Amino acid sequence: MLGSTRGTLTTTSRPSRVVACGDSPGPVFPGPAGPAGDVDVSGRPLHREVPDLDRFFRPGTVAVIGASETEGRPNAGITRRLVAWADHVGAALHPVHPTRTTVYGLPCHPSVHDLPDDIDLAVLLVGDPLPVIEELADRTVRFAVAFASGFAETGPAGAQAQTRLVDAAQRAGIRLLGPNTNLNAFEQFRDDLTGPSIALVTQSGHQGRPLFALQELGIRVSHWAPTGNEADLECSDFISYFADQPEVGAVAAYLEGIRDGRVFLLAADHAARRRVPVVAVKVGRTATGSRTAASHTGKLTGADDVVDAVMRQFGVIRVDGLDELQDTAALLARARPPRATGIAVYSISGGTGAHFADLATAAGLELPVLSRAKQAELHQWIPDYLSVANPVDCGGHPVGDHRGRKIIDALLADPSVGVLVCPVTGPFPPLSDRLVQDLVEAAERTEKLVCVIWGSPAGTEDAYRTTLLGSSRVATFRTFANCITALRAYLGHHRFVSSYQSPFDHAPRTPSPSAGKAKALLQPGEQLSEHAAKQLLRAYGIRVPREHLVTSAAAAVRAAGQIGYPVVMKASGPRLGHKSDLGLVRIGLTSASQVRDTYRELTDTARYEGLVLDGILVCQLVERGVEMAVGITHDALFGPTVTVGLGGVLVEVLNDTAVRVPPFGEDHARAMIGELRGRALLHGVRGTPPADVDALVETVLRVQRLALELGDGLAELDINPLVVLERGQGAVALDALAVCR
Amino acid sequence: MLGSTRGTLTTTSRPSRVVACGDSPGPVFPGPAGPAGDVDVSGRPLHREVPDLDRFFRPGTVAVIGASETEGRPNAGITRRLVAWADHVGAALHPVHPTRTTVYGLPCHPSVHDLPDDIDLAVLLVGDPLPVIEELADRTVRFAVAFASGFAETGPAGAQAQTRLVDAAQRAGIRLLGPNTNLNAFEQFRDDLTGPSIALVTQSGHQGRPLFALQELGIRVSHWAPTGNEADLECSDFISYFADQPEVGAVAAYLEGIRDGRVFLLAADHAARRRVPVVAVKVGRTATGSRTAASHTGKLTGADDVVDAVMRQFGVIRVDGLDELQDTAALLARARPPRATGIAVYSISGGTGAHFADLATAAGLELPVLSRAKQAELHQWIPDYLSVANPVDCGGHPVGDHRGRKIIDALLADPSVGVLVCPVTGPFPPLSDRLVQDLVEAAERTEKLVCVIWGSPAGTEDAYRTTLLGSSRVATFRTFANCITALRAYLGHHRFVSSYQSPFDHAPRTPSPSAGKAKALLQPGEQLSEHAAKQLLRAYGIRVPREHLVTSAAAAVRAAGQIGYPVVMKASGPRLGHKSDLGLVRIGLTSASQVRDTYRELTDTARYEGLVLDGILVCQLVERGVEMAVGITHDALFGPTVTVGLGGVLVEVLNDTAVRVPPFGEDHARAMIGELRGRALLHGVRGTPPADVDALVETVLRVQRLALELGDGLAELDINPLVVLERGQGAVALDALAVCR
Repeated sequence: MLGSTRGTLTTTSRPSRVVACGDSPGPVFPGPAGPAGDVDVSGRPLHREVPDLDRFFRPGTVAVIGASETEGRPNAGITRRLVAWADHVGAALHPVHPTRTTVYGLPCHPSVHDLPDDIDLAVLLVGDPLPVIEELADRTVRFAVAFASGFAETGPAGAQAQTRLVDAAQRAGIRLLGPNTNLNAFEQFRDDLTGPSIALVTQSGHQGRPLFALQELGIRVSHWAPTGNEADLECSDFISYFADQPEVGAVAAYLEGIRDGRVFLLAADHAARRRVPVVAVKVGRTATGSRTAASHTGKLTGADDVVDAVMRQFGVIRVDGLDELQDTAALLARARPPRATGIAVYSISGGTGAHFADLATAAGLELPVLSRAKQAELHQWIPDYLSVANPVDCGGHPVGDHRGRKIIDALLADPSVGVLVCPVTGPFPPLSDRLVQDLVEAAERTEKLVCVIWGSPAGTEDAYRTTLLGSSRVATFRTFANCITALRAYLGHHRFVSSYQSPFDHAPRTPSPSAGKAKALLQPGEQLSEHAAKQLLRAYGIRVPREHLVTSAAAAVRAAGQIGYPVVMKASGPRLGHKSDLGLVRIGLTSASQVRDTYRELTDTARYEGLVLDGILVCQLVERGVEMAVGITHDALFGPTVTVGLGGVLVEVLNDTAVRVPPFGEDHARAMIGELRGRALLHGVRGTPPADVDALVETVLRVQRLALELGDGLAELDINPLVVLERGQGAVALDALAVCR
Repeated sequence: MLGSTRGTLTTTSRPSRVVACGDSPGPVFPGPAGPAGDVDVSGRPLHREVPDLDRFFRPGTVAVIGASETEGRPNAGITRRLVAWADHVGAALHPVHPTRTTVYGLPCHPSVHDLPDDIDLAVLLVGDPLPVIEELADRTVRFAVAFASGFAETGPAGAQAQTRLVDAAQRAGIRLLGPNTNLNAFEQFRDDLTGPSIALVTQSGHQGRPLFALQELGIRVSHWAPTGNEADLECSDFISYFADQPEVGAVAAYLEGIRDGRVFLLAADHAARRRVPVVAVKVGRTATGSRTAASHTGKLTGADDVVDAVMRQFGVIRVDGLDELQDTAALLARARPPRATGIAVYSISGGTGAHFADLATAAGLELPVLSRAKQAELHQWIPDYLSVANPVDCGGHPVGDHRGRKIIDALLADPSVGVLVCPVTGPFPPLSDRLVQDLVEAAERTEKLVCVIWGSPAGTEDAYRTTLLGSSRVATFRTFANCITALRAYLGHHRFVSSYQSPFDHAPRTPSPSAGKAKALLQPGEQLSEHAAKQLLRAYGIRVPREHLVTSAAAAVRAAGQIGYPVVMKASGPRLGHKSDLGLVRIGLTSASQVRDTYRELTDTARYEGLVLDGILVCQLVERGVEMAVGITHDALFGPTVTVGLGGVLVEVLNDTAVRVPPFGEDHARAMIGELRGRALLHGVRGTPPADVDALVETVLRVQRLALELGDGLAELDINPLVVLERGQGAVALDALAVCR
């Protein structure tokens, strides 16, 4: 365990004071592009080459610079570990040491210049890897691992040193892991475990340890990438690579930050296309977590709701605990696609079945009521007075004899059943032993998923340790909650990938005709007037009320006449916030005299408040509808994001909003609305007619287009309220606030 | 294990078809009263005698009716188990069998009439316990346990048989456990475990099994009551009794239903007064769970939001999983009261600390930033570049030597720290072994709580099995989530009991002057007119607009004149639902002619719709405020409940409501409002003034009084909208709907 301990120390002994949460060690945009110039209209890449990491994980030749066998020196321990590992993976190891002739029996090279020309992997155990990288330039070296810390995670100076290191590596044509990484990349995996594996990528050595330890439960783990500072190779690269490996059934990730948002999207998209599940713990739900993570890895955690949205969009399964990460990744790696979405629950105890059914249905899982025929079949072996509708209460006795297996097979044969769950909350031989034995044997003969929850707190029983963990066909859990979390992820993943269409295939590459008009309206660093902001919307075909900007009472009256009474009047000017709070909005003016008086009142108020106006807006009064809000905000990791929510005051009080990161399709625009707690307002309540949801969806998509074409020029866009009219009548942006970057 | 297996079988082999969800096997009101006639104004008891169950759990004499030693007979297995158990608890066991002279070496009595006169506990192994109970009447028998099933859980006929059984037991002066219970009451507990214990009450044998098995982890369990049908003794009786036992540190309950809501409230109140935590799993979050539970135990699960509210009111800690029940009950049983609410997190890995801090703060736990002085102290042993603000990242190395213990002691000595949490996600000796050894030793020398999370999936390591589980001072968990759940419960429980005041001490015993007036307005089975419903409110001092009920246009104009323009006019009559949807409400009428016309329009509309009116309401127009809703609904388990929520359309769309079961104090009326997602509407948004929350609280309390005095006469009361005016201006019930029972 020395190696792993050492690895953990390397991961955790890193400076931490200097990085401010706002700093980003990596460039946010653009990620390295794939096919030359294949970028979307925002200049962001649409492709990312999957790096070929075969020689990194299975190198033929390994050079160790800084090798040592001097006991007590940390490098000696690392070298010994590397020698054993190279032997295990069948790589030729070349120690480099200025004076020694051998290290642990292997012939030593005095300098890198004496190395063979073709090196797959160079391990740099030196304090300052930069000169070594430069020396390696005259060799063919595919990958280098730099353990040394003291780079970007220590702040600006370290970040510069890191940049120099990456430049040198690029000049030398070397892909770099680290710096500030650890030995977990050189773990020895069990070769005796078969079936689909879990591939692991972590930004903390210690946090990956329990997933590596899944091998003790018979679950195969095939790769572990501890990415450290991600100066060059980042988590996303490993996710993409893992998704291409035939033996990998699922990718498990422990993430504190994301180096490059767009590259992460492309990696998740690649995994989704390959139908390989990615399960991730992502720190940063709270400010405390973000601050601590930043001081740990110097990465941006990102706004958590945006991270959540991104994962939903691209099918990354987010979990909170490492135990959930283990159980969910293990199930998704090993289970075949579901034959049906229904879950049958079979237990020794009616109480256990009731409890599991309660929690499972509360979590949205489907427990179909079994057909009369199936229930009749089950009653051959189960007394008539027990309920076998699902959950199936057998009363206990049948579990102990030949009937047990017949019941299990009958349930697995039911076409509505895709998953059989057998909760055993406490062991009581011989019944529980017979039950799990029957389940293990039945699981060997079915394509369907068999889950057992072994609830014994000790977990030392043979039925668990030997029978259950000995089976690669039975998914074994220790708690109801983790079984339910994993089953939701399993059914959700297969639903997701079966209908997944990559948004990058349809992302706009060239500006729309609107773009030119709209860009002309931007004023860098300024908040636009309401009138100008509405011009921006109009350019993208988003409907706004008929309105005129006037600078005299007489013009106001003329405008009102053209628009038609009643009208609305508002003060318009740059940097005007909530106008209604300031009394700068008047609704329902019905006569020329009212308009004339109002013009004076508004301009007087503005003068009294010391506000600069570009004029007074005279606007069409729009009939009543559902007040929503649609907007754009700029995320530090992912760039422009599109939000939709309840409008008016409610957006502040209930903060009932949904967000997506472009590019996304109409399906997600609809899904966003479906996520709102207040969505029923759009269906028509208390006799009000249903609202024009299609028009709302269309508006969201037009705002996305605007975000893609202007996003980097906009800090914020807030259409509030967007009045969604009766079905078929469209939606109108009554007010808009736009701030340029 | 035979006994426990047998026990489980008995619990689960019960008929299940017949009981309809709506049936309640036990009377809902009133629970058996304590001091004669000490009931509140609603006739519900204010006290409940705690039954003396000492002789039940520690009997001196036990009679076994139906004893057998014929191998293969189920009774033989049970008898053997009872003989061993009686020997273990030091009770004299008297087998009763018509022909045998001895059973398992003990002299047999041919009939109950030959038993010694004084029997603490009679165990009835017979198919029909009724005649035996009747025969026992001429003896002094304190308790009887009836295993037989086929009673209330099988439907009406069984329910009648159960009633006859209970009557016979009452005549014989015997307290009855069961029928339809099992052997779990006769488990043998480990005597070698010390410290506060967990007392267990379950409505399913199998579901209690993992809690009983906590003894394998060194956690003391002292009682287990499997309550079966609860014909006489019910869960609440055991909760009250356990709360009085000095050795009991916490009560753990697995509940599917609640026999008598009021008795449960009194038991929870008793435990709260005694400061004994009650942790419960309660099935019934979903319809599926309720249906299945009903078919399992024939009990009402109750409306889940009401059950949640009751548990919040009386400090019962509700959890979802049996694993949470184990971990939370174990912590609450064993941990001393907190010296401070702050949590310090100390880990080998910065990543682990960041991850735990993120989840803990997201769950509302408090991680205080350590003082500069404390951080300086920690930096004596931890490199300066590592963050020790909390969480404390030591970089790993110090854990392995003398510094580790100094860091632990320094953290425990900090006055802001009440709890030290050390997450170890993966074992890596020697560091992790040294860490847990230091923690176990430090825990022996502090009053503060020390928690370890041992994340290794295998859990077979000595550091866990021997060192951690061997300590009764360290609280050991396996997952972050369960540690956080238990810590929230621990800090929440001590906060709750330290300020708990029993609402029963202040519950009204005599009707208010309002009651008479109000009762006169009730019309059994009828929905009252808006006007009559408002009279009900007025009787309880709840403000309604000035209004007149008129039956002619002329009278309407006169009324408007008295009230003052503008006025509101509404149709009023029994069984009128959403009047505004029907166009039967007109707002802001400003002249006599408008009032005259509106009178005709409203009466015409009503005639057209075929509605019966008692007249037209002419009402004062109330200025704008925040629209809320306050009401009463009738819960099958707990009787009248009081709800408050957002008013108007939002109450339907967002279902943003909070509920409480009377009696409750002003603190809970305020807490209800604090639970609303839309509560910020009351604080004043977008320049609107803060609303009169005190008036809202006062209205909730007046509605509670109304509920207590009329509750059983009312099926439903809905004040919506209740317009809460600007602070200091009060609240006005604009509309009210009342349905009588």
